[in-house]
Amino acid sequence: MDWIAVDWGTSNLRAWAMGPDGPLAEATSDDGMGRLKSDQFEPALLRLITPWLTASNTQVLACGMVGARQGWRESPYRAVPCTPLDATGILHVATADPRITFHIAPGLSQDRPADVMRGEETQVAGVLALHMGFDGVICHPGTHSKWVQVSAGEVVGFQTSMTGELFALLSTQSVLRHGLTEGWDDAAFDVGVADALQSPEKIASRLFALRAEFLLHGLTPAAARARLSGLLIGIELAGAKPYWLGQRVILVGAPALAANYTRALTAHGLTPETLDATACTLAGLSSLYTRMQQ
Amino acid sequence: MDWIAVDWGTSNLRAWAMGPDGPLAEATSDDGMGRLKSDQFEPALLRLITPWLTASNTQVLACGMVGARQGWRESPYRAVPCTPLDATGILHVATADPRITFHIAPGLSQDRPADVMRGEETQVAGVLALHMGFDGVICHPGTHSKWVQVSAGEVVGFQTSMTGELFALLSTQSVLRHGLTEGWDDAAFDVGVADALQSPEKIASRLFALRAEFLLHGLTPAAARARLSGLLIGIELAGAKPYWLGQRVILVGAPALAANYTRALTAHGLTPETLDATACTLAGLSSLYTRMQQ
Repeated sequence: MDWIAVDWGTSNLRAWAMGPDGPLAEATSDDGMGRLKSDQFEPALLRLITPWLTASNTQVLACGMVGARQGWRESPYRAVPCTPLDATGILHVATADPRITFHIAPGLSQDRPADVMRGEETQVAGVLALHMGFDGVICHPGTHSKWVQVSAGEVVGFQTSMTGELFALLSTQSVLRHGLTEGWDDAAFDVGVADALQSPEKIASRLFALRAEFLLHGLTPAAARARLSGLLIGIELAGAKPYWLGQRVILVGAPALAANYTRALTAHGLTPETLDATACTLAGLSSLYTRMQQ
Repeated sequence: MDWIAVDWGTSNLRAWAMGPDGPLAEATSDDGMGRLKSDQFEPALLRLITPWLTASNTQVLACGMVGARQGWRESPYRAVPCTPLDATGILHVATADPRITFHIAPGLSQDRPADVMRGEETQVAGVLALHMGFDGVICHPGTHSKWVQVSAGEVVGFQTSMTGELFALLSTQSVLRHGLTEGWDDAAFDVGVADALQSPEKIASRLFALRAEFLLHGLTPAAARARLSGLLIGIELAGAKPYWLGQRVILVGAPALAANYTRALTAHGLTPETLDATACTLAGLSSLYTRMQQ
């Protein structure tokens, strides 16, 4: 093992023992940033990676919410336009355990419209490592979906939508929750995407219509669930149209979610390529590690 | 006392002892529909109104979610276009206690776009009782805000937006909750309304921008809270524009909330009149009671 790569998000902590050709082993826990106080980060990390450590010092490179204000240590954002990931912005965090040297990759900020990211910048660097010279748009679907415009190796601008968080809140906490317990219906998803793109101003009434159609017309849970997802992805696409219209788009995300975005974008004339989010994270951290050794 | 008026919503139960000239006494509890099983409705009502009952039978007229599928007894919707409230649609519910005769006013449904209401139809009837011959649009701001078009004494159509519920979810359950704990800022509210009306398709990214501006530019909780409210009321107004543009509008709602809607509508050239929601509910139930005696 040469070094350790860490993806430390709000909900999960993932670590990889990295050899010269890529990951040798993986370890995961639910010690996400959201449940840790600042003095609990090092113990949480050591619980996961101790089996990989030796007497000599090991470099650990982390990205994600670990560098947020509520994280282990705040790593200041780098302001776009800039390269997605750069050795100069790396934050060293002193550890009690001498066997590791811990670094956090900084996130990116955009002044106006105000926006921030932590973690996706590493995936963008990974896309650039995997696709040398990529110019175009990268979409990261998720809790806070991001559209990132990349040109000449730099992040030019980006836009975040609360799509995944809105879906979670509406499907589990709102009046809609009774009517969309489970299942999926592709046709209903397509209707939701098309409706939201065609008349985005009606989003708040189309959401309530899911409840009304359940009461009046027996809308099935599968159709309601898929239409809700379609409406929310559709309103995201409506707001991000300047990002994707006529552009080369790469989706970076979990397969099922990326498949929904592919379906929605394909219906509007795009042929997006999908890359695995973990592969991009590791490619990004690896390229950073390489640069830090130079 | 001639009869008892009841407004039975999801969260609260309110009853009024009604004399020939209006309410003589009021009683309130938190025994809303949402916390009662079907056999708990009559005891909850009796706990509230027993002091008013005599040996002779008293008529009780109720509106609201008490008539929903999860209520005391489901009162079928009446389909628009129709009068807001009509003695022919009233549901009699047998009670164990012989001192009361209990009736539920039915809600209204709209086939396409699918929509439903329970309670607002009584307020619409109240507006028509207070403003004989009113033609125009009635807005009921709230958890599920409603815009109702009234013409020639009938409800022609209506549209519900999840505005209040979205505000509650986003301000207490989402990532935004840390940044908008309290306070209010009129200018920030105006910006939110204007932004949402001007580019409704950006709503999901403008929501996340509240978080980013908190992190990057120190957006105050008061400004964030007011802007969130403005964005959500703005997207409702954008979707309801065919209802209010160039129309005579009456707002029926709680004073503080109605004041926000007045501010937003006034900025867009309207001069809405506001009526108190309770006064409208009582006027609606009273007109129904009168018709049932004929």
